[in-house]
Amino acid sequence: MDVKMRMMDKKDNASLDYIYNQQKELSVFGGIGALLGWDQMTYMPKNGASDRSEHGALISKLSHERVVSDEFWNHIQNLSSNIDDLEEKDKHVVKRLEKDVGKSRKIPSDYVTRMVKTTTVSYQKWEESREKNDFSVFSPHLKKIVELEKEYCGYIDIPGPRYNSLLDGYEEGMTVDKLNKEFHFLKKNLIELLENIKNSSTYQNQINPKIRFPINIQKELTQGIIEKMSLSGDRSRIDVSTHPFTTSLGYDDVRITTSYKEDSPLFSFFSTIHEAGHALYELGMPQDEYKNTVISDSPSLGMHESQSRFWENMVARSTHFWKYYYPLFQQKMPDYFKNTSFDEWYAIVNRVQPSLIRVEADELTYCLHVILRFEIETDLMEDRISVDELPQIWNTKMEEMLGVTPTNDKEGVLQDMHWSGGSIGYFPTYAIGSIYSAQLFNQLTKDNPDTLNQISQGDFSSIIQWLDKNIHKIGCRLPADDIVKQCCGEGLNSNVYISYLKDKYYQLYDV
Amino acid sequence: MDVKMRMMDKKDNASLDYIYNQQKELSVFGGIGALLGWDQMTYMPKNGASDRSEHGALISKLSHERVVSDEFWNHIQNLSSNIDDLEEKDKHVVKRLEKDVGKSRKIPSDYVTRMVKTTTVSYQKWEESREKNDFSVFSPHLKKIVELEKEYCGYIDIPGPRYNSLLDGYEEGMTVDKLNKEFHFLKKNLIELLENIKNSSTYQNQINPKIRFPINIQKELTQGIIEKMSLSGDRSRIDVSTHPFTTSLGYDDVRITTSYKEDSPLFSFFSTIHEAGHALYELGMPQDEYKNTVISDSPSLGMHESQSRFWENMVARSTHFWKYYYPLFQQKMPDYFKNTSFDEWYAIVNRVQPSLIRVEADELTYCLHVILRFEIETDLMEDRISVDELPQIWNTKMEEMLGVTPTNDKEGVLQDMHWSGGSIGYFPTYAIGSIYSAQLFNQLTKDNPDTLNQISQGDFSSIIQWLDKNIHKIGCRLPADDIVKQCCGEGLNSNVYISYLKDKYYQLYDV
Repeated sequence: MDVKMRMMDKKDNASLDYIYNQQKELSVFGGIGALLGWDQMTYMPKNGASDRSEHGALISKLSHERVVSDEFWNHIQNLSSNIDDLEEKDKHVVKRLEKDVGKSRKIPSDYVTRMVKTTTVSYQKWEESREKNDFSVFSPHLKKIVELEKEYCGYIDIPGPRYNSLLDGYEEGMTVDKLNKEFHFLKKNLIELLENIKNSSTYQNQINPKIRFPINIQKELTQGIIEKMSLSGDRSRIDVSTHPFTTSLGYDDVRITTSYKEDSPLFSFFSTIHEAGHALYELGMPQDEYKNTVISDSPSLGMHESQSRFWENMVARSTHFWKYYYPLFQQKMPDYFKNTSFDEWYAIVNRVQPSLIRVEADELTYCLHVILRFEIETDLMEDRISVDELPQIWNTKMEEMLGVTPTNDKEGVLQDMHWSGGSIGYFPTYAIGSIYSAQLFNQLTKDNPDTLNQISQGDFSSIIQWLDKNIHKIGCRLPADDIVKQCCGEGLNSNVYISYLKDKYYQLYDV
Repeated sequence: MDVKMRMMDKKDNASLDYIYNQQKELSVFGGIGALLGWDQMTYMPKNGASDRSEHGALISKLSHERVVSDEFWNHIQNLSSNIDDLEEKDKHVVKRLEKDVGKSRKIPSDYVTRMVKTTTVSYQKWEESREKNDFSVFSPHLKKIVELEKEYCGYIDIPGPRYNSLLDGYEEGMTVDKLNKEFHFLKKNLIELLENIKNSSTYQNQINPKIRFPINIQKELTQGIIEKMSLSGDRSRIDVSTHPFTTSLGYDDVRITTSYKEDSPLFSFFSTIHEAGHALYELGMPQDEYKNTVISDSPSLGMHESQSRFWENMVARSTHFWKYYYPLFQQKMPDYFKNTSFDEWYAIVNRVQPSLIRVEADELTYCLHVILRFEIETDLMEDRISVDELPQIWNTKMEEMLGVTPTNDKEGVLQDMHWSGGSIGYFPTYAIGSIYSAQLFNQLTKDNPDTLNQISQGDFSSIIQWLDKNIHKIGCRLPADDIVKQCCGEGLNSNVYISYLKDKYYQLYDV
């Protein structure tokens, strides 16, 4: 090794030290930000909001400054230019950093400020427009958001339609072309499936079940399921918030929330399982050499959603799951279950009923809600439609795809908060997660034929191990689609998902 | 105004902008730090501790860097050198900043790091020594702490005994001389009072009451009292933690905690009132022009403690208070109160019983526990005694002052966590607060002769107004003793406190 070589090594070592320290600090900022958000949604007194927004803004500012600092970038570039000399681990980290930081640096900081200001107002106006049931209160602000999103696409500038640049922020590598193809197939099949089900006499005779479980029973049930799913109280907790969510405050501190309503006891149960799926992913992130690096993160929101949907739908809405849980529910609510057989209960848990609100949709129709939003968003970003037309377009599409029409915008175009927060391009990840979850479950049952039997015994340990090995511990060393390909032999493909839905729901509805 | 003058103005304005922005940011860091601490003590899953210590360390580091930065100091110095040109408000702020920041700048940052490291280990060793009931596990670490405290005194270097420099960190302007005089009088009188009480037949016949209130009843009682004390749910909340505390996350977000034990129902009730007293102070801090400045803070821990003791002792252990609350307790616990008259209950609430543990001490003997610690700490700092002698000295003093002797160090020298955290000099503030609280209450009843009557009707509104005007809204524009002087006509003076105790306890014990 000559002197020049040794010099370079030293410089590289300094750069490595720098980037790892920086990632560690960013990870600490992330945890602090997560606590600020968690507390705001769970326990913060109402009037704490004003100071809290200052807390959040400061942490975001400090964190953002570090991400886009020239010093950080120079170290990354220095390492990247000698990437072949790096160890495997460092290669992964530097490549990921170069991509992420490079992208952040494309966005001018005045843009970030403008976006934050716009979304703050826009969110309030969205809430107001819902209260007043008046889209025109929100629409001028949504127009600003759309313009800002277009500006963002200009900075990121991924080839093809603008929407590609938005998608990439949530689902790296995903494109409009790929999704058009995937969602076209999915939509066609879901509509056909739904049509056949609606024509069945089982569907036509099904009634709207009235179920009430006392809150304390619901709490026992949610507590029981998170323990079964190995969410230890030493590393996680569950609290109450208006909308359920999962957040990670550290490697050993992941928190989920749910909400309890007496007359919809299945909401708290399934939302807890859904969030617990997210939480297991967070708790399973690589803690070894990749701890406090960018690699110790999910590669995409679709991948994250695949974990929650996996547990919520593939596991907890399955007939095997209820073989174990039906008797347990019976014990807790003997009066109710006196008159509700296993088959009736299983049908209630999987009841198909086209409806207006996405977050209340059943498993079968859920993706149609998502595809509707994808179609609208892509049209909006390519100026094929305008914001003012949205309520009308929304209602027409609802009628076409689901056969139901909102009677007002609150149960139509105003139902989701995403747009008000500048999150155009986010929705598709919900459908991607659903598709992935079916592919993963299908592969799991091939890898471990005893899976269904284990589920029917309330034993989820080998499922967790399988997910941990094949998904969680990979972090974002690979893009989502490559992780799925590595595990299942192919990337995103709705075929498995559609087959699964067909098998399950044709049987349920005697089609 | 000539050009030179205008130039100076501009520079001053830039400095004013800078110092106000800096204080705002420090205040935001303070709120974030408070949330990190609050969550750790209330809801954080056990294994979150490791990441949490990183969160806390980063916020402390960033905050400390800003406090001691040369730029900040230069702006303060610039303003200070033209102090006569400043407006009244700015004068207060600049003077306070010069004092506080100047003091912080005296401490080398490597000292801060060494102290944090030492106390982290020391706290663990203190816990371990308690578990093992073995002082020798803790003593080597306490020795290190004592040496570090001496080093600190060298940096601060207030004239007189070293301990003056420690005291100043908790009770600005307080000295060993002043406290020696005050505590000598207090100790003499308390011992005499206690002796007379112990010789009374009432004392000799008093029994140890057994009271059990179910936790849910205790919760109703604590909830009721904080509402009565005007702690609005929009600006505050109460939670559970091992040790009760109060913390301020923002001007409109102050949180208190308590803990519930079935067999000591008075603990949750009185500790809630105590913490609510602290909380009212925090919620009453000046929000006008002084918001987010150093002025919007208490001038000392003794002043803060005066607020909690005021409510806990002067108000809530008074006979007038129980005129209102006795019937309410009766309603909640009819079975218990069937056999407990008003007089019996009032005696229970104010039961004098010399005991080993400070935090469980009654109102009368409490300050003796504090004086004992003060004597030991001052002797320790002047090398008149050594760490190894502490257990023996502790026990001897307990016997002399309280007539009880610990049978082990856990109920003796190891009982408090303060020393392990490097807080030598903190204890006296508890007694100072008690003395102040009696002076304040005495003045209040002069200013508003209807006070006792209002208390007996459960109406605390004019008390809160009085405290708000005379204490809370002053912030730290004045030192604690000057605030008390301004309000009561004289500063710290145990006479009023002793008279109050004499009147109350001689009557209770028929002395």
